[in-house]
Amino acid sequence: MAEIKTAPGFFDRTIQGLRGAWRGLAGWSDASVPSDPDLSERAERVRLVERMEACLAARGGEVSARARAVDLGRYYLALSDKGRKRFLLRLAIQFGTDRKAVDAAVDRLSHAADDDARAAAEAELRDALEPSRVRLLRQFNALPEGTKFLVDLRADTMRFARSEPALLPLDADLRRLLGNWFDIGFLELRRITWSSPASLLEKLGRYEAVHVVRGWQDLKNRLDSDRRCFAFFHPRMPDEPLIFVEVALVKGLASNVGTLLDAQAPSDDPASADTAIFYSISNAQRGLAGISFGGFLIKRVVDQLSAEFPRLKTFATLSPIPGLREWAVKRLAENGGFALTTAERKALNKALARHEPPAKGDDAVLLKHALALPGWHQDAPLAVAVEAPLLRLAATYLLKAKRKDGRALDPVAHFHLSNGARVERLNWLGDTAKRGLDQSFGMMVNYAYRLPDIEANLEAYTGEGKIAAASAVAGLI
Amino acid sequence: MAEIKTAPGFFDRTIQGLRGAWRGLAGWSDASVPSDPDLSERAERVRLVERMEACLAARGGEVSARARAVDLGRYYLALSDKGRKRFLLRLAIQFGTDRKAVDAAVDRLSHAADDDARAAAEAELRDALEPSRVRLLRQFNALPEGTKFLVDLRADTMRFARSEPALLPLDADLRRLLGNWFDIGFLELRRITWSSPASLLEKLGRYEAVHVVRGWQDLKNRLDSDRRCFAFFHPRMPDEPLIFVEVALVKGLASNVGTLLDAQAPSDDPASADTAIFYSISNAQRGLAGISFGGFLIKRVVDQLSAEFPRLKTFATLSPIPGLREWAVKRLAENGGFALTTAERKALNKALARHEPPAKGDDAVLLKHALALPGWHQDAPLAVAVEAPLLRLAATYLLKAKRKDGRALDPVAHFHLSNGARVERLNWLGDTAKRGLDQSFGMMVNYAYRLPDIEANLEAYTGEGKIAAASAVAGLI
Amino acid sequence: MAEIKTAPGFFDRTIQGLRGAWRGLAGWSDASVPSDPDLSERAERVRLVERMEACLAARGGEVSARARAVDLGRYYLALSDKGRKRFLLRLAIQFGTDRKAVDAAVDRLSHAADDDARAAAEAELRDALEPSRVRLLRQFNALPEGTKFLVDLRADTMRFARSEPALLPLDADLRRLLGNWFDIGFLELRRITWSSPASLLEKLGRYEAVHVVRGWQDLKNRLDSDRRCFAFFHPRMPDEPLIFVEVALVKGLASNVGTLLDAQAPSDDPASADTAIFYSISNAQRGLAGISFGGFLIKRVVDQLSAEFPRLKTFATLSPIPGLREWAVKRLAENGGFALTTAERKALNKALARHEPPAKGDDAVLLKHALALPGWHQDAPLAVAVEAPLLRLAATYLLKAKRKDGRALDPVAHFHLSNGARVERLNWLGDTAKRGLDQSFGMMVNYAYRLPDIEANLEAYTGEGKIAAASAVAGLI
Amino acid sequence: MAEIKTAPGFFDRTIQGLRGAWRGLAGWSDASVPSDPDLSERAERVRLVERMEACLAARGGEVSARARAVDLGRYYLALSDKGRKRFLLRLAIQFGTDRKAVDAAVDRLSHAADDDARAAAEAELRDALEPSRVRLLRQFNALPEGTKFLVDLRADTMRFARSEPALLPLDADLRRLLGNWFDIGFLELRRITWSSPASLLEKLGRYEAVHVVRGWQDLKNRLDSDRRCFAFFHPRMPDEPLIFVEVALVKGLASNVGTLLDAQAPSDDPASADTAIFYSISNAQRGLAGISFGGFLIKRVVDQLSAEFPRLKTFATLSPIPGLREWAVKRLAENGGFALTTAERKALNKALARHEPPAKGDDAVLLKHALALPGWHQDAPLAVAVEAPLLRLAATYLLKAKRKDGRALDPVAHFHLSNGARVERLNWLGDTAKRGLDQSFGMMVNYAYRLPDIEANLEAYTGEGKIAAASAVAGLI
Repeated sequence: MAEIKTAPGFFDRTIQGLRGAWRGLAGWSDASVPSDPDLSERAERVRLVERMEACLAARGGEVSARARAVDLGRYYLALSDKGRKRFLLRLAIQFGTDRKAVDAAVDRLSHAADDDARAAAEAELRDALEPSRVRLLRQFNALPEGTKFLVDLRADTMRFARSEPALLPLDADLRRLLGNWFDIGFLELRRITWSSPASLLEKLGRYEAVHVVRGWQDLKNRLDSDRRCFAFFHPRMPDEPLIFVEVALVKGLASNVGTLLDAQAPSDDPASADTAIFYSISNAQRGLAGISFGGFLIKRVVDQLSAEFPRLKTFATLSPIPGLREWAVKRLAENGGFALTTAERKALNKALARHEPPAKGDDAVLLKHALALPGWHQDAPLAVAVEAPLLRLAATYLLKAKRKDGRALDPVAHFHLSNGARVERLNWLGDTAKRGLDQSFGMMVNYAYRLPDIEANLEAYTGEGKIAAASAVAGLI
Repeated sequence: MAEIKTAPGFFDRTIQGLRGAWRGLAGWSDASVPSDPDLSERAERVRLVERMEACLAARGGEVSARARAVDLGRYYLALSDKGRKRFLLRLAIQFGTDRKAVDAAVDRLSHAADDDARAAAEAELRDALEPSRVRLLRQFNALPEGTKFLVDLRADTMRFARSEPALLPLDADLRRLLGNWFDIGFLELRRITWSSPASLLEKLGRYEAVHVVRGWQDLKNRLDSDRRCFAFFHPRMPDEPLIFVEVALVKGLASNVGTLLDAQAPSDDPASADTAIFYSISNAQRGLAGISFGGFLIKRVVDQLSAEFPRLKTFATLSPIPGLREWAVKRLAENGGFALTTAERKALNKALARHEPPAKGDDAVLLKHALALPGWHQDAPLAVAVEAPLLRLAATYLLKAKRKDGRALDPVAHFHLSNGARVERLNWLGDTAKRGLDQSFGMMVNYAYRLPDIEANLEAYTGEGKIAAASAVAGLI
Repeated sequence: MAEIKTAPGFFDRTIQGLRGAWRGLAGWSDASVPSDPDLSERAERVRLVERMEACLAARGGEVSARARAVDLGRYYLALSDKGRKRFLLRLAIQFGTDRKAVDAAVDRLSHAADDDARAAAEAELRDALEPSRVRLLRQFNALPEGTKFLVDLRADTMRFARSEPALLPLDADLRRLLGNWFDIGFLELRRITWSSPASLLEKLGRYEAVHVVRGWQDLKNRLDSDRRCFAFFHPRMPDEPLIFVEVALVKGLASNVGTLLDAQAPSDDPASADTAIFYSISNAQRGLAGISFGGFLIKRVVDQLSAEFPRLKTFATLSPIPGLREWAVKRLAENGGFALTTAERKALNKALARHEPPAKGDDAVLLKHALALPGWHQDAPLAVAVEAPLLRLAATYLLKAKRKDGRALDPVAHFHLSNGARVERLNWLGDTAKRGLDQSFGMMVNYAYRLPDIEANLEAYTGEGKIAAASAVAGLI
Repeated sequence: MAEIKTAPGFFDRTIQGLRGAWRGLAGWSDASVPSDPDLSERAERVRLVERMEACLAARGGEVSARARAVDLGRYYLALSDKGRKRFLLRLAIQFGTDRKAVDAAVDRLSHAADDDARAAAEAELRDALEPSRVRLLRQFNALPEGTKFLVDLRADTMRFARSEPALLPLDADLRRLLGNWFDIGFLELRRITWSSPASLLEKLGRYEAVHVVRGWQDLKNRLDSDRRCFAFFHPRMPDEPLIFVEVALVKGLASNVGTLLDAQAPSDDPASADTAIFYSISNAQRGLAGISFGGFLIKRVVDQLSAEFPRLKTFATLSPIPGLREWAVKRLAENGGFALTTAERKALNKALARHEPPAKGDDAVLLKHALALPGWHQDAPLAVAVEAPLLRLAATYLLKAKRKDGRALDPVAHFHLSNGARVERLNWLGDTAKRGLDQSFGMMVNYAYRLPDIEANLEAYTGEGKIAAASAVAGLI
């Protein structure tokens, strides 16, 4: 979606906002954005810590402290990446807990004489364990778009933390704070249509992570009368979707995403649809990683659609299988128990015979050879020959491949299984776009959400690691 | 305001809401309101704890857990006061921290080898110190008006805690949780006018704590063109003011609240006003006690009014002095250094001579005697005779009377002083309504907010306990 | 409703609006409100006509002309009643059609050679017949609340026209113009609730013409959960209801308005109601007299309620019978065929025997005598004795009494009959408030709207003057 | 703007609307869309006239009549172009005035004895002259998007009327009706931004008539921070702009539209702009042709921008000169007084000498020859040589070329002059896009709106046909 790229960034807008719109605390603010944001490192470090301390000082009351924090936030926004990293490190290193206070509280807890004393000591210890920077972070919320500021601050922190583990405690603080604020009870479900603001639709195009939006016409097609798009919003970030889902209202379980996204295809009458296909779910805010809304979003959308279209019987996804190829290639290399049936081997050999060079080796080698041929999926005999073995591999991958902690190896599978869905159907060549072929030999899968089974599926999965599947899929193994 | 009384309570509405409006989680909910909410105590206790545990169990995932919490919340709403108290006690007593987990984390902290280990141990301890009930409280936020539910739950908890200290830790948890959610950055300032919803104005009439609203005409008068009313709202409680302030735009410092509230008086042209009088600030949610918005509200309203009316020069209150009479009566009884001047004594004796029985005794006794005469303030010679001594007493009370922790003894004084105001002027017979006479011999006081001095005043007060005052007031002592 | 009385009038607000809010044409406006609006009559008349002519002159284009009309409108608003009447007379007398132009067009029409020439001549004549003041009236629409201005201007015109028939053509022009603008297709149906703006509810209280609103509590009761209130609004008068209807959702046909309006009575669950009672319909704008919305309002509300409450089976009014007593008194005086049955006469004589003075005379005299006794309706034997004769009289009045043009004599009956309702039931002592007793001996009537019969009823009534009635009512005669 | 093309048409949506959304009158509607809309011509004609008559019949009252009109409107929407034309012809021919009634009213007018009788006769004649179809047209307004329906109905009528003059009276009726309803006082000015609904922006792209929108990025660029876009809307067509203007906030008078529309160019800070350039004004509704909003739109936008940006000093357009080339070519062909100066002729000959074939002839022939050379404007010597003569021609065209009725020959010039602007500056090669070169040899013109002069300019132009111009332009002639 080449066109949807150059929206003025949030930070730019915030600076504008800070300059113009917000009268809230301006009267008590005196600091200003430094003309040279990247001073000499040492001088800056000192100055920074002073400014941070000023925000935390009791001086002038909470109103003034917030005004100072606004200035500090403004300062942060004007910094380069290097400057921001320094800023965050200062916060992480110099504004933690007070060791003495913690130890004293621990001591008091150890010597608590009775339950009441213990309760008091626990409360004291809880307070002592709150790093001082948390108060400063909270003050940033007074910025005009303060909540978005903190979400983006966390995105920065996470990015830098990959190479700078000292930032991890700060990241944990931010996650805790944002987790509190983005409680599911505060989120608003909104439908997005072609009459939504163009600026919002532009963001949708940019954030869509599953099936790339190819332009405004593609976007419009996804908001057509037989489609639905829903997103969660936070009241303090009304223009920023947090997570969104795209749904197609169709007859029967959809098997091919290319057909689904075809802008040329005529719209169906949604009132006659019996199936809602959730073909894309995307998180839109990196800074909210680890705070999960997906399960709630699906639940709310199922409720909403059920009310609007009483004929809907099936709620299912049409999902990629992102980890399949990697897992299968390794499996075939290890040759661990992979075998073709006689008929399969014969068909495959026959199909391969039409290609150069001739393939030789065991079943795994043959299959690898076939899949390495360019355009194999468009060569009908070859595609037919590999279909059954690949579907078997895919079923094994989805139902059996696990991480050490017992979760399904495939991340998309894990997401839906942990929300109570079951593996419903494998779709041969459901996505023949390059990414689809690269990830999963073009296969896709439907996960079905069946209201009466959701809770049982979910418990079986989270409890015993048992993965629910339709018999047609389970029977493939 | 006799008429404004019978609005259907929040809880009623919530139950209705639960019955009808909310589809969010209904599909997964199975519990129902018990037909007999007050079961035998023991049976109920067991059942309650089971239900609470069900919400906290991992079973069925977070979506289902919230659905169960909704049922539990509905159950709470259907309980009698007695039942609610039992409910809260269960929460407070049986869903605290896990002692073993806390002790283990403390142990690990004590043996932390380096900073990283210590940071990890602190994080672990922090988690262990979170009482399990907090997660349950948060789940209640999924109720249709969940945030208001929790605010009212805290009001219940505070009420019961007066006689049941075991509820205090629960109250502290609620305060922490609500403090997070009602961060000033999330609040919305809205102007309230005669075109605001009648249901909102009705609440205003009910919540007004300073000068009782006497009916709709009085209310309308307070929203006239030369008046302003502002309130803070939370996005999840859009119909519930959190705190509101009533302002009169006048010429010169107002001295008499009766005149100010006179519905018969013609409206002034607000564009020619030079003074904004904040004559009433009321908190509207008991459940948010201790979470303070007042300072921010005043600051925001000053900013807003300054922008709309550039001619405004003075921002001041017209405030009651609620603790004066009680303090003065004690003072006169102790007779601690109270004395009239010769002229004052003579005038007072002369004025008293016109009344039966004749008064005898020292200065304090004379004064007490005068103030005990019914209608003394309407007896001109008597009122004149007591004016100077009473003003002197009032000045002493406001500027010198302190609590042990150094705060001003008068609660209204403390509120404004801790926001940076100064004691500007005493108003003799500024409020001759019964409450005014009872509380403060009819005196009122203006506190002035002068933007350049606010921060210095505030620091002097919170730091050294120094109270800023206009020289005319300070000179009275 | 003593309290709801002193809202600042529309005109005051408009002047304020003119002073402050409207930037639209202000740049090109130069005239100002005269300091002495009532100049010497002659001077003013000349000046007025000049100003009116200035608006109609081509000079400066349409934008400037509108700006001048705004000034003229402002001038009108500042005038006293006497001044306004002069103003309207000027408009009516000096800005009519151009006689010469009309005669020339008539001449051309008479000599039109063929159909095309005739069509052209008709178009020309149509233009010539448009009084020049109509363009000026339309220009007033550029006032900030211009549409409301014209509605109120018509109200003024109608009021003055009673004594000044020269204003009638102006009234006709205004009615035509407003009829165009208030086309039913432009009106918006809105539900009014206790959460509607207080300023709007205050207007409701003032405009309610059928059952006087006794205060805010009464108003709130009428907006309770088992009540509905709907109004039509025009997009350019968003704060002004045009017409509104009050509905009670009940079980069975309501028979007593006192019970219905009882604020103490508990609310019923509207979901279980089977009947919607339209107990009050009031026009709110005198200036829209003769432009009818009532039928459309009822139709829309029936549709809306049917969709919300599928259990509703009956839609009926509970209506006063305003002309009954006047008609009945005259009838009894004429003694035209009025007679009691033997049993009735006996019962009546017996009931009257308990009162002084003894009554003598024919049946009509006896009945008149009974009804003249104070508190007759609370004297059980008397009330029972007159019930049957009075119900018979009422049925005769409603079904037989006609105006010369064939319309029902009772205006409320005519309104509902011409919308397709039928006379459903008479309610003995349905309204024992003073007005009810005075108008109709306390009787009320239900008109029922039965969807399948509406069109037939309406045609029968408008065509042959046939009045539809339930057999129980028709059988009374 | 290839992408912005396939929005579901209004008519499609309306039909959907009619099927689903509108409950208003559905209960009383019985007719349905014919399965074969193009019946045999004769049968249909009869049936059509019957249906139209049914709408006009008194039968069943106004509510029912509207319901029937809704069905008829639905029927119209389902017709082919041929069917629609027949439909409109029926309306135009069979539902005009009643000749007898008109003649009778004329007769009464001729014999009116006095002024009152004359006034009554005029009123009667006015009614008689209203064609019966006008009532039917008005009834269509009850369609769900009825106002838009009538606007589009007029667009159809105008289109067909080009070949079918019998439709002209119907067109006149529609124009009168819509002129009433689209009174400037009812229109709402709205700013359009990148946060406006995508569906609205898509329409903007489609309706832009002056400078074609090349895609979403171009559109976004036109809504950037240094741009403004305003449109008029009607309350009953909230998603349909009536007319819109695009403005650039710049420093100094803009001379080149390519530079202005360059998406790559950085945004200027609008707060420092001193000039607002109205570079595009487009009507969006063909059906409102002849009902003029342009002057009001410019006035309102000037007011709005002046308030927001007090530094703005100049309000001017950057306009095409659509009729220049055609006029100039004719002029050169006639050779009427066109002559080069000696220096111009010399320079032109020299520049032409570098091209084949050599040019011979008088001045006009030389110039025509030069302008016929492909790419002449990119050949620097040639472009320089023709600049002065062409500017002279353009000035003559704009200031002197008139239609017979005295209006400026150039339609864009006429629009701005009749709104009070003056010809400010000619811009050599201000638009070198193909259309610019074709229409006006790449020249553009600024018309300036100077508030103090607007009224005088306008009067001079409309009165004496005098065209105001800056001396630099006037001096060219």
